[in-house]
Amino acid sequence: MLKKPTSLLLAFLIALPLFAQVRGKIDIPDLDGYVTLKCDLHMHTVFSDGLVWPTVRIDEAYREGLDAIAITDHIEFRPHTDIVASHNRSYEIAQERAEEKGIILIRGSEITRRMPPGHHNALFITDADSLEQPEYMDAFRAAKAQDAFIVWNHPHWAPQQPDTTLWMEEHTELLEQGMMHGVEVVNRLYCPESHQWCLDKKLTMMGNSDMHQPIQSDVDFCAGKHRTMTLVFAKSATAEGIREALFDRRTAVYYNEYVIGEEKYLREIFEKALTWKSEQTDSVTIRVTVKNNSDLTFRLKKKQHDTRLVYFRETTIVPHGEHILIVKLRDDAEGGELDFVVENFLVLPNEGMRCKVKM
Amino acid sequence: MLKKPTSLLLAFLIALPLFAQVRGKIDIPDLDGYVTLKCDLHMHTVFSDGLVWPTVRIDEAYREGLDAIAITDHIEFRPHTDIVASHNRSYEIAQERAEEKGIILIRGSEITRRMPPGHHNALFITDADSLEQPEYMDAFRAAKAQDAFIVWNHPHWAPQQPDTTLWMEEHTELLEQGMMHGVEVVNRLYCPESHQWCLDKKLTMMGNSDMHQPIQSDVDFCAGKHRTMTLVFAKSATAEGIREALFDRRTAVYYNEYVIGEEKYLREIFEKALTWKSEQTDSVTIRVTVKNNSDLTFRLKKKQHDTRLVYFRETTIVPHGEHILIVKLRDDAEGGELDFVVENFLVLPNEGMRCKVKM
Amino acid sequence: MLKKPTSLLLAFLIALPLFAQVRGKIDIPDLDGYVTLKCDLHMHTVFSDGLVWPTVRIDEAYREGLDAIAITDHIEFRPHTDIVASHNRSYEIAQERAEEKGIILIRGSEITRRMPPGHHNALFITDADSLEQPEYMDAFRAAKAQDAFIVWNHPHWAPQQPDTTLWMEEHTELLEQGMMHGVEVVNRLYCPESHQWCLDKKLTMMGNSDMHQPIQSDVDFCAGKHRTMTLVFAKSATAEGIREALFDRRTAVYYNEYVIGEEKYLREIFEKALTWKSEQTDSVTIRVTVKNNSDLTFRLKKKQHDTRLVYFRETTIVPHGEHILIVKLRDDAEGGELDFVVENFLVLPNEGMRCKVKM
Amino acid sequence: MLKKPTSLLLAFLIALPLFAQVRGKIDIPDLDGYVTLKCDLHMHTVFSDGLVWPTVRIDEAYREGLDAIAITDHIEFRPHTDIVASHNRSYEIAQERAEEKGIILIRGSEITRRMPPGHHNALFITDADSLEQPEYMDAFRAAKAQDAFIVWNHPHWAPQQPDTTLWMEEHTELLEQGMMHGVEVVNRLYCPESHQWCLDKKLTMMGNSDMHQPIQSDVDFCAGKHRTMTLVFAKSATAEGIREALFDRRTAVYYNEYVIGEEKYLREIFEKALTWKSEQTDSVTIRVTVKNNSDLTFRLKKKQHDTRLVYFRETTIVPHGEHILIVKLRDDAEGGELDFVVENFLVLPNEGMRCKVKM
Repeated sequence: MLKKPTSLLLAFLIALPLFAQVRGKIDIPDLDGYVTLKCDLHMHTVFSDGLVWPTVRIDEAYREGLDAIAITDHIEFRPHTDIVASHNRSYEIAQERAEEKGIILIRGSEITRRMPPGHHNALFITDADSLEQPEYMDAFRAAKAQDAFIVWNHPHWAPQQPDTTLWMEEHTELLEQGMMHGVEVVNRLYCPESHQWCLDKKLTMMGNSDMHQPIQSDVDFCAGKHRTMTLVFAKSATAEGIREALFDRRTAVYYNEYVIGEEKYLREIFEKALTWKSEQTDSVTIRVTVKNNSDLTFRLKKKQHDTRLVYFRETTIVPHGEHILIVKLRDDAEGGELDFVVENFLVLPNEGMRCKVKM
Repeated sequence: MLKKPTSLLLAFLIALPLFAQVRGKIDIPDLDGYVTLKCDLHMHTVFSDGLVWPTVRIDEAYREGLDAIAITDHIEFRPHTDIVASHNRSYEIAQERAEEKGIILIRGSEITRRMPPGHHNALFITDADSLEQPEYMDAFRAAKAQDAFIVWNHPHWAPQQPDTTLWMEEHTELLEQGMMHGVEVVNRLYCPESHQWCLDKKLTMMGNSDMHQPIQSDVDFCAGKHRTMTLVFAKSATAEGIREALFDRRTAVYYNEYVIGEEKYLREIFEKALTWKSEQTDSVTIRVTVKNNSDLTFRLKKKQHDTRLVYFRETTIVPHGEHILIVKLRDDAEGGELDFVVENFLVLPNEGMRCKVKM
Repeated sequence: MLKKPTSLLLAFLIALPLFAQVRGKIDIPDLDGYVTLKCDLHMHTVFSDGLVWPTVRIDEAYREGLDAIAITDHIEFRPHTDIVASHNRSYEIAQERAEEKGIILIRGSEITRRMPPGHHNALFITDADSLEQPEYMDAFRAAKAQDAFIVWNHPHWAPQQPDTTLWMEEHTELLEQGMMHGVEVVNRLYCPESHQWCLDKKLTMMGNSDMHQPIQSDVDFCAGKHRTMTLVFAKSATAEGIREALFDRRTAVYYNEYVIGEEKYLREIFEKALTWKSEQTDSVTIRVTVKNNSDLTFRLKKKQHDTRLVYFRETTIVPHGEHILIVKLRDDAEGGELDFVVENFLVLPNEGMRCKVKM
Repeated sequence: MLKKPTSLLLAFLIALPLFAQVRGKIDIPDLDGYVTLKCDLHMHTVFSDGLVWPTVRIDEAYREGLDAIAITDHIEFRPHTDIVASHNRSYEIAQERAEEKGIILIRGSEITRRMPPGHHNALFITDADSLEQPEYMDAFRAAKAQDAFIVWNHPHWAPQQPDTTLWMEEHTELLEQGMMHGVEVVNRLYCPESHQWCLDKKLTMMGNSDMHQPIQSDVDFCAGKHRTMTLVFAKSATAEGIREALFDRRTAVYYNEYVIGEEKYLREIFEKALTWKSEQTDSVTIRVTVKNNSDLTFRLKKKQHDTRLVYFRETTIVPHGEHILIVKLRDDAEGGELDFVVENFLVLPNEGMRCKVKM
């Protein structure tokens, strides 16, 4: 390398203007007492097998309206042999940009092992290098020693479990020793088994992008799509706020049009996102105006019908849409209930959330 | 027509759900003491030579974030001979939907004559039928008798003035008799002659879509485009507020990326839309962060250079973008001014607005 | 109306340039011996309860890449009382533009009755006015007398059947008397009952937009969506070709990402749209390149697994995409079959098409 | 690094499916005897100050429909100190993917010096490491020794020439010694001075992206935009074909809606892209149908008017659009010529190409 010319050049090489960024925004209601943070806690850079420089992950998060990310480069898989560096480097490089853009950056690493136990993310660690250990249990112990929040990533990943999604005794051991706190319910695909485990074993539901490419290669933003993310219901918009919420299991997963999570959280989102207004326009007609104040979509499908009412079989409430629904009263009914399932709000594996709205 | 079956059918024919609408929003700053209303005051329906039912114009305005429209069907050109109706019908039909959606609907008609004097819109009239007169001056008199605000439409329209844009004595006569108050500075194309007339003769600058088709056939919303509109700086978001502002010439025209108008209004928009933050990062570097809080674009081009500063030749501030500009100090300068023209803010015909920002 | 000025004006009023149109294109493979025509045979204009002038329907079809449409204004429901005209007018007005743009326009009308028998389209009629009859059977007889192809529209429409989708004896009567030839399997929503009836009763599967608004109000083209349409496998791209194919039941329905139809047609589309190329890169790895030569999407989900192979659980082949799939051989297998369901190719009600691809 | 587990892991870590790519296509006509290749011959990766892994540049080119790219990492500016590698590495890493996707990859490097002489790309080199030299003339000599095609990049770059665009004697020296063959006429901004130099000094016109970020960060593909590129009129779609064309100056620059180049090439593109069809519909009217068979836009503005004809003042022919223009004959003219400038086809600095079309 030419040392002297380079340093002379430096003063002149900064591009002017540097670049433009447009801060994105994802409208999802806050819950009582909590802010809803949009988080993607699993992604890669050139420091493992990813294809972008760490700062790109901050720029992406800023543009898309995320509040927080974790870069979780693989400890045991670093195919770009031109790069020789500490496992802490991707965090260090991204951290300055994160502060500049107001993105919360959480230090993490992916412990990358054959199944069992498969791949796990250790989040909120302080030294990623300490996770490089010959035996996997030693890596988990190093993470636990740093009070990490540990997530089992993509249990349904075909290369490791091509035809089944099994919970193995190694996972029981990790759980019992306090070395597993969450599971990815979505990583590219939805995993209903993970969903059930979270409910049964009191694990935190996670949904992440696991992005390796520039994000636009995988997410069709032109078509209004978003990346998979974890909604974290936090007491404050800080790393500590996220940490406390994760350990308390206050999350939901936002994947395509789906919101997946505990019913109590999903119901509150539903209630806060939609406002309903009914007006009886004649003796047999109620005109219902539904206003969606969020970026979420709601796919409603009639459940058990109320014979006094004639209303939609299925309807979709679009983001920020104002919909007019006409409800007919049969016979001399004086009212009744719209009874439907929000098909894309999953409160049990592959099962939507039932709702009733009084007329 | 089958009378009885039809009426029986009516109760069952209302589609459920009726439809979904998403209210649009155009972020342009309000001026001190005024709200900035986005208005399109020239368009057509099937009641003259347009291709849509009047309610469609309201739906379009709602989706695009307009505050007010005028349907201005031609008095003298009604080629759809299957439709026989009063000139007031398109207003009457649209009015109910306008109230429902919160759009201000202004009653208008287009007096459609050969050149001179060409086509003129009469706005804020009370009875459109009265404008149907053999002699054009009688039509204008009928409009004036209703206190109409009258606009000369598209003086540059090729079928009427293919190669010139002339102000004729008939226009002087209309102006002097209080029968012309505004001119379209943009109708599909920008007309620099109209721009100059507005400055010289104290006419109100108007820019409208003159839409005949469904709006999406002409405006590429997928590419983030908007229709041409008149920005009205009104004391209140009411028809009366618009009327008072039009007669007081408090408008600008928003056409593609251009804003066209009096310098005092454009400068205030510029100042309210952008926030500048400078920080000296070392002895020769100032880091300038510009945040655009609007949907407007600003195309900056360096004007006379300040030899103490090194900065961009041209740069574009995108809607809602946050831009970082690097400014270098030459020699031992202690500051200086960014001096540039906002090329797309036209304060004179084809001439941008000059701005200076202190470092 | 002012007769003389109007006619003088006419020469000057034609807008220059008139308008621009971009011909759309939908890539779906032709079948052996047939061309695949994209048809929407159910829509409305201002001549019944629609909101656009008839020519707009031709412009829309041209832009979207449709080959044929039918305007099917209601006989018994014409709420726009300003328009008094023969039921043949919307066809007549659209026909000139159709020829100009190369769109096949089929004359039709919607016989619009309470349930039973509900709404039916009569296609390929010669005189729509003859369908205006007090008794519904007389309307059907008039259609049959013109050799019409008759379709039962949206049997699942909530205002007529809010909670059930029943086939009634009136429908049996129509079928037996040669007055019902097809059923809408999709009209906004998919109707699995219609799907089954088509299989059981040898009816033709139809899917149409039933558009009332300008099409862009209902279809999100910016997001790459398309309107619901009927794919007609015709011997020639003519009205007669479509007619012959409809009576021979050679159709499929294209709705969102779904293709719905007889398995023989869907399998041929699948085979012609995708090309597969396998290459064994080492002793345990086969690299499969799948190229999609169509605008269709294919959502593949693994069916019964072949224990010798490790491959995807689910994958989506995007329009015109080239995908690389990695297949691992277990043990010392020498090959095997990818066995999956194309979830969005419905060959039975709500049931995808099973496919196997040899490695 | 853990050697053994890593190698064991490798067999399981390959993601299935790997990824999907959709090959893009840019429709620009071929010229007689030549194919029109879309080339971007200036861009960066993490191996200098770029932000993506080299293979990303191939994926981007494939998606966007480019035929050829050159990765031109800086020799003298490599701020990512975690990466220590030969200057040939970015080429080597990208080459395998390039072959797989059918993209022509040209080896290049950017000689990155203060002004004068500024930054230059050396293309078609065989060993990038040989360009690392203390004195800039030695770097240029090393490039020349490898028969490189050498391009002066962005002479108008503000950090090096903030207020002027001067040709200096160092550039004359490079030119005379056969060490400069082309100049960038566009690099983010259009540089009219470069345009003039190319005409005067017989240099090849180049337009490139100089991309550092993932391409989507800088180019708004959702709005139908494309990156800046060099159109190369080559005898064959090979690296050698591009090389021969570059040395023979057979290029044009495609930048936003602009095409910039020698008039002979632009005129042939214009003629091959558009087909004109005229039809006299009555004694005073000619109906002109213009069909655009390309992805280019044509912005036509009337030049000196032919007093016998009435036609558009300005019109825009959109990509793949079919436009209907109405031309009126005045008096008893029997024809004439449409005379206009294609404003976005620059054949001289800031000057459009004049065209006449016989009626």
